[in-house]
Amino acid sequence: MSFKRALPAGLISALRAAVHPGAVIADRDRLVAYEADALTTSCGLPDAAVFPADREELIRVVRLLHEARVPFVARGAGTGLAGGAVARGGVLICTTRMHRILEVDAEGRTALVEPGVLTDDINKAAEKHGLRYLPDPASAAACTIGGNVATNSGGPHCLKHGVTTDHVLALEMVLPNGTPLVVGRGQDGGLDLVGIFTGSEGTLGVISRIRVDLAPVAVAVRTFLALFDSVADAGKAVGRIFEAGIVPVALELIDHQTIAVVEASVFAAGLPLDAEAALVVECEGDPEEAAEDLEEAEQAVLECGAREVRHADSEEERLAIWQARKKAYGALGRLAPDVFVQDAAVPRSSLPDLLPQFTEIADRHDLRLANFFHAGDGNVHPNLLFDRNDTDQVARVHEAGAEIMALCVEAGGTITGEHGVGADKVRHMDLVFGAEELDIMRAMRDATDHLGIANPGKLLPRDDGEKSV
Amino acid sequence: MSFKRALPAGLISALRAAVHPGAVIADRDRLVAYEADALTTSCGLPDAAVFPADREELIRVVRLLHEARVPFVARGAGTGLAGGAVARGGVLICTTRMHRILEVDAEGRTALVEPGVLTDDINKAAEKHGLRYLPDPASAAACTIGGNVATNSGGPHCLKHGVTTDHVLALEMVLPNGTPLVVGRGQDGGLDLVGIFTGSEGTLGVISRIRVDLAPVAVAVRTFLALFDSVADAGKAVGRIFEAGIVPVALELIDHQTIAVVEASVFAAGLPLDAEAALVVECEGDPEEAAEDLEEAEQAVLECGAREVRHADSEEERLAIWQARKKAYGALGRLAPDVFVQDAAVPRSSLPDLLPQFTEIADRHDLRLANFFHAGDGNVHPNLLFDRNDTDQVARVHEAGAEIMALCVEAGGTITGEHGVGADKVRHMDLVFGAEELDIMRAMRDATDHLGIANPGKLLPRDDGEKSV
Repeated sequence: MSFKRALPAGLISALRAAVHPGAVIADRDRLVAYEADALTTSCGLPDAAVFPADREELIRVVRLLHEARVPFVARGAGTGLAGGAVARGGVLICTTRMHRILEVDAEGRTALVEPGVLTDDINKAAEKHGLRYLPDPASAAACTIGGNVATNSGGPHCLKHGVTTDHVLALEMVLPNGTPLVVGRGQDGGLDLVGIFTGSEGTLGVISRIRVDLAPVAVAVRTFLALFDSVADAGKAVGRIFEAGIVPVALELIDHQTIAVVEASVFAAGLPLDAEAALVVECEGDPEEAAEDLEEAEQAVLECGAREVRHADSEEERLAIWQARKKAYGALGRLAPDVFVQDAAVPRSSLPDLLPQFTEIADRHDLRLANFFHAGDGNVHPNLLFDRNDTDQVARVHEAGAEIMALCVEAGGTITGEHGVGADKVRHMDLVFGAEELDIMRAMRDATDHLGIANPGKLLPRDDGEKSV
Repeated sequence: MSFKRALPAGLISALRAAVHPGAVIADRDRLVAYEADALTTSCGLPDAAVFPADREELIRVVRLLHEARVPFVARGAGTGLAGGAVARGGVLICTTRMHRILEVDAEGRTALVEPGVLTDDINKAAEKHGLRYLPDPASAAACTIGGNVATNSGGPHCLKHGVTTDHVLALEMVLPNGTPLVVGRGQDGGLDLVGIFTGSEGTLGVISRIRVDLAPVAVAVRTFLALFDSVADAGKAVGRIFEAGIVPVALELIDHQTIAVVEASVFAAGLPLDAEAALVVECEGDPEEAAEDLEEAEQAVLECGAREVRHADSEEERLAIWQARKKAYGALGRLAPDVFVQDAAVPRSSLPDLLPQFTEIADRHDLRLANFFHAGDGNVHPNLLFDRNDTDQVARVHEAGAEIMALCVEAGGTITGEHGVGADKVRHMDLVFGAEELDIMRAMRDATDHLGIANPGKLLPRDDGEKSV
């Protein structure tokens, strides 16, 4: 199936009639705004973009596209890092206008939301009831819950609390034929459709409503930052903390390069420029429990050669430490116009070996590398800095990226820790999945998408060898 | 497809050659031992039963059955309560000889086990490393981990710790064509096959290996038993405990009838026979945390009219309380030869309304009802006592059971909380799932089971209206 054709006559007017007339963009100049997500190397233009205001409009839109056999790509805020929400032809369905929090059930500790709600806004609504939504993708202030569910997002605090799929209780999915289907979680008999819909990256349908679970806000949170003269030692300390029998709520690593850019930015946290790595360790729970866990974690990092441990003695100091971590991505703009954000998951125990090898690979390709990542769950982000106008450099980025990815898989890891497969990682899928497994996934995708119109070419490699949309 | 035919000539000898010759039973008199699981009302005889000793033998067996187009049913210890592991014709594949714990990785906190390992044996192996496997089905001493994964088992302590699917990291599944497929969990790209395999009740293949996660043993556990003069008040107290902002690790309800039979048994725990209901509340964590949580829970039950709260001041007292709960099922044998163990999940908040209605339905059908269940997650077991030789009584049990199930669904609940759908609940599936949803599940099942030979007729109702195997 090729999608590089014009839309059928009359489709744009039909879409305009299905939603607010101003909520359909078909003008090429305006569509450019949607040519990429946050992975700027993966571009494409849809033939149109539609912005339904609610589930009824969304259903009408999907029905029209299904009748017309036109492929579509669902998109939230476009903060994804794998090109999953980019359309090459077809219609982009943007859920950003579906941003209502429909219910916060404080007694049942759940919230029912539309997919375009910003992740942070769920927290703002929950906080009024002493509750919170636990997964915290670093882009929570900008990304949507629909995108989180579609990619099964992680986040720094998911180490203890679990990732998005662990907090989705029920979903309404508009199937590729336009039928809305409500599926509930867990032990309710039948196959776990919520589980397979979560992380399916728009290939099984478009999410129209989500019920998430909420938890009480933390009673006590204790945080320190540990500085190391060796990134391998910092990697070792990660393992040692777990061996001590505690699970921090967050355990993040920031490397030398990242410290340098953050300290040069407005988010400077006073970190020494000669440190090779820093670990952010956070524990939560009862006040005594959090303090005890933190003490044990401090012991562990000192045993692994930490040269200094800085405790956050106030909420301001804690937020400063987190700013250094959370704003690292933005701060990289000071070093290079573009960042190839890599995402892989590796066994925690392999970190001391792998981190120096990432540097070696980057050096060999004459590229700058910046690591800042969720060390606790072995979710690495060995990011490569580059300038997209330098074609030679772009080629080296892709080579180095592929080497790093292969190294992670060889170490027993996998090709994505939290950003999803999207368009970018499809070519790596056969590194981790065999033909039989991919065939089963394709058959399961076909179970809802009979025509192959829902985000075609993403997540699963085509079995006919054709490239993505 | 009909399975009421003889096995193809030569199949039995081929099976005998594929495993130990003594590990194939084809003699009708000996097969009677496998005519039911713990749901004694759902019987059937296979044409043969095979007992592979390891994954290689299992693979050979499934390949032979696939070549011969013979349907098969995987079975662990046969403790299931929904008739899921019963074969009516075809071949029963019993995994009880596959009972090796292949690895306990203390550092990584995981264990790799064969499907026939008893759930409790994982704990025994983990305890040597200060670790434990968290889900605790009440039958943990007798049931197998393979059966737990196939039915996504719950248990009293799953309230805080999550059910089986939350603790399965990876699986090897022997697909219905005999191909072994290893699938890993979570955010590794692609569709969540571990998630959909877990709870699929043998309809997607036969589990050959399981990697589960382990957790440190609890530091402190505090338990009390609260007595009530009204079962509705006990139901209210369940909600009040959660409103107080704490999540007990277990929160179980035992009703009047259950107290009576337990007190008449060797597991008597000194509970007063005039109490209408008892709640078992257990909290765990740091010693201070567990004690504080328990204190808040005590406050909550007293506010809801508990007439007495008995704290377990020693491990012996704690175990006595749990014996009363865990041996309740066995003790019911004193009242009637058979128990129709019902299993449904309802919103916690509906418990005060529903519990008296369960009694009303049982009374109207002149049946005795015994409730003992996981109140914290709204997983009710309104069990009906009967004698299977009394056909009139059996008919009334089925009528009352259907009424109770419909009532639970109407209250926003579903048809199984933890025992699975099996053969017994297939007829109720359309109470909770629409035609489109069932079609999607069938298509997903067909993704691995092209011939329809893996536990046919279980879990999903046939779309051709034919009844189960």
